[in-house]
Amino acid sequence: MKFIGYRCSLCGKEYGAEEKIYVCPLDQGNLDVILDYDNIKGKIKRREILTSNESSLWRYLPILPVEDPGGKGTPIHAAGFTPLFSPPAIMEQYSLKHLWIKDEGRNPTASFKDRASAIVVARARDIKVEIIVTASTGNAGAALAGMSASIGQKSVIFAPKNAPPAKIAQLLIYGAQVILVDGNYDQAFDLAIEASTEFGWYCRNTGYNAFTAEGKKTAALEIWESILMVEKLSKPLTIFIPVGDGNIISGTHKGFKDLQALGWLDGMPRIIGVQAQGSASIANAFARGSEKIIPVEADTIADSISVDLPRDGVRAVRAAKETGGTYITVKDSDIIRAIGELGKVGIFAEPAGATAYAGFKQALENGVIVPNDPIVVLNTGNGLKDIKAAMLAVTPAPVIEPSMTALKKHLGI
Amino acid sequence: MKFIGYRCSLCGKEYGAEEKIYVCPLDQGNLDVILDYDNIKGKIKRREILTSNESSLWRYLPILPVEDPGGKGTPIHAAGFTPLFSPPAIMEQYSLKHLWIKDEGRNPTASFKDRASAIVVARARDIKVEIIVTASTGNAGAALAGMSASIGQKSVIFAPKNAPPAKIAQLLIYGAQVILVDGNYDQAFDLAIEASTEFGWYCRNTGYNAFTAEGKKTAALEIWESILMVEKLSKPLTIFIPVGDGNIISGTHKGFKDLQALGWLDGMPRIIGVQAQGSASIANAFARGSEKIIPVEADTIADSISVDLPRDGVRAVRAAKETGGTYITVKDSDIIRAIGELGKVGIFAEPAGATAYAGFKQALENGVIVPNDPIVVLNTGNGLKDIKAAMLAVTPAPVIEPSMTALKKHLGI
Repeated sequence: MKFIGYRCSLCGKEYGAEEKIYVCPLDQGNLDVILDYDNIKGKIKRREILTSNESSLWRYLPILPVEDPGGKGTPIHAAGFTPLFSPPAIMEQYSLKHLWIKDEGRNPTASFKDRASAIVVARARDIKVEIIVTASTGNAGAALAGMSASIGQKSVIFAPKNAPPAKIAQLLIYGAQVILVDGNYDQAFDLAIEASTEFGWYCRNTGYNAFTAEGKKTAALEIWESILMVEKLSKPLTIFIPVGDGNIISGTHKGFKDLQALGWLDGMPRIIGVQAQGSASIANAFARGSEKIIPVEADTIADSISVDLPRDGVRAVRAAKETGGTYITVKDSDIIRAIGELGKVGIFAEPAGATAYAGFKQALENGVIVPNDPIVVLNTGNGLKDIKAAMLAVTPAPVIEPSMTALKKHLGI
Repeated sequence: MKFIGYRCSLCGKEYGAEEKIYVCPLDQGNLDVILDYDNIKGKIKRREILTSNESSLWRYLPILPVEDPGGKGTPIHAAGFTPLFSPPAIMEQYSLKHLWIKDEGRNPTASFKDRASAIVVARARDIKVEIIVTASTGNAGAALAGMSASIGQKSVIFAPKNAPPAKIAQLLIYGAQVILVDGNYDQAFDLAIEASTEFGWYCRNTGYNAFTAEGKKTAALEIWESILMVEKLSKPLTIFIPVGDGNIISGTHKGFKDLQALGWLDGMPRIIGVQAQGSASIANAFARGSEKIIPVEADTIADSISVDLPRDGVRAVRAAKETGGTYITVKDSDIIRAIGELGKVGIFAEPAGATAYAGFKQALENGVIVPNDPIVVLNTGNGLKDIKAAMLAVTPAPVIEPSMTALKKHLGI
């Protein structure tokens, strides 16, 4: 067995792998999945993973707490393994030595969330559940719907009715049962848990289901494989991650911790969380030097990270603290500007995705990083998911009559 | 030299590689790029290509008429090499033995057109042009803008003002100079050529610039590498391709012809073109047994293949004729239904992308293919590019109050 149980991130109490739990029954703390590292090391060599033929996150199956869910030749087996871009124009502009933008918008449903949903769908298969339910601001639900569709798994999604239309369209297209709530993400979150409890549905809610972080950790495994195992870096890697509920940053941290526990990684990258100023409760806690998360009334254009009460806040604070990182907050106007700058080098990011890049720029201005630090910036979602936000980053195109006369007039020739 | 000239597809006249031409000056016929196959074979072994480390269409550089444009570590080096999906639910439903859906929506700008634009940008670099111009219904322009942005190439895009908003947003985000015309694609097409002639801009127009087909042929090279070189098929492969101006189908055909000329492919896959009934001038010509393309007044939901006058019609007719294929036309309602069916297996296609699947279904019903034929269906674009069309394929989601009472009432419990 590689998956042997859970440990509460607050009280440290451990639970067996056979227990049907989400968060710690004692204090509602997020549960870390416990892996049997000795068993894993006995079964697989690092080299076998690095030479795997599987071009998806399933190449890391030996370090994941699930079995292969099947679906080879479907989108669930095409999740992860996203490209790293090093745009020359940005590197020159800021005199950077190493910059990698990890483009999670290239996932099957066009966001980072495919990683979490793929693993939760695998878990659902392992424990033979009929229906998976989740609350979502859009991406997690689209990912659950898409990964589920790959292998015929039933799913139910609760999303706020004001989610971007493209995300709602995705939920429906992938054939999930979609129920929009006349409320915000946090209300959808609570409703999903209630429905899960009453109807016996398996709940995927982010920051509630322990397996989402296990899926998200595969981003760390890819960064390790593609950068840390390949490049000779003279300074530690710094990773910028957009933070809403805190689960992507805590999942990424878990990935690196797993690698260390396996003896496959020396040192720890520095993890910097970036929040929108209008949804900054984790950054606020970090700034106070506290693990106590005080909810806010979230208001930001970056819908994917707009959260009143982060559900994985404590581990998110620790991800920065324990790695020598920090938290940064950015304005919506910074996020919109970041969308434009990334677009100009060929990377189209949704607002939450561009948030990490906005944070990277601020960190450079404030001296939190210096130009010769090796940097990874996580773009968590494709800009096609939120056209309305994208249009704020550009000047609308002129419309002319289809004639040379009109064209010359427009060009001022 | 691997690229040695052009040959007119109508009169057969040849032109040297150094000539600055688009279509044949004598009869406006599309030009085929002539490669020096002996030279290529002398320089590279098939095995070297099949074991290339380059996970993009640039693995086929030795068979392409351009040099590497640079931009390693940018989206232009992430074009192509798209996944093949074999959805179990569809294969079971139709008792298919082999089905691969090639998901071109996973390209950097989310459509097949990245292939053509990547090669045209490389060509622009080879001949040192300052500005590339193109007309586009949206995807070709987004692809040109995105590929250009990768390496700092300037581009100008003419698109109809009624192109889907997501496509226009892409053009702008990637930093191209975008000019919308109060007219249709055909008018934008003519204007791009006029501007190219008058201002000395390099024109990428599809079915006009000979290099677009060279980019599109990489889809054939990938099908060859991933399917024909791997699977032991007892029957010839049948490939379904959505057809608008005819350039994707003619480019795919060229790819297989190149492979045959190199002695790397026995037999020829059967190529079936699928057009929307409302934009079927190539299918009409094929049905008449003619190469004469009579324009129509195009009217279909599939905007990417909505074309009054196809610019690569003759070669498109031949692609089906010379491979034992045929043409199929489908209704808009078939296309919308196809979007829904592909979505349910986790593949989100835009209308033009779903058109090939609709054609595949019709071919199966009509006995044009039988269930044990090995089938490839090309999905040419991501559904996120046209949300409005996607919503026609689904029932809108209900909106409820965020409470269990409301949920139970909705579920009828």
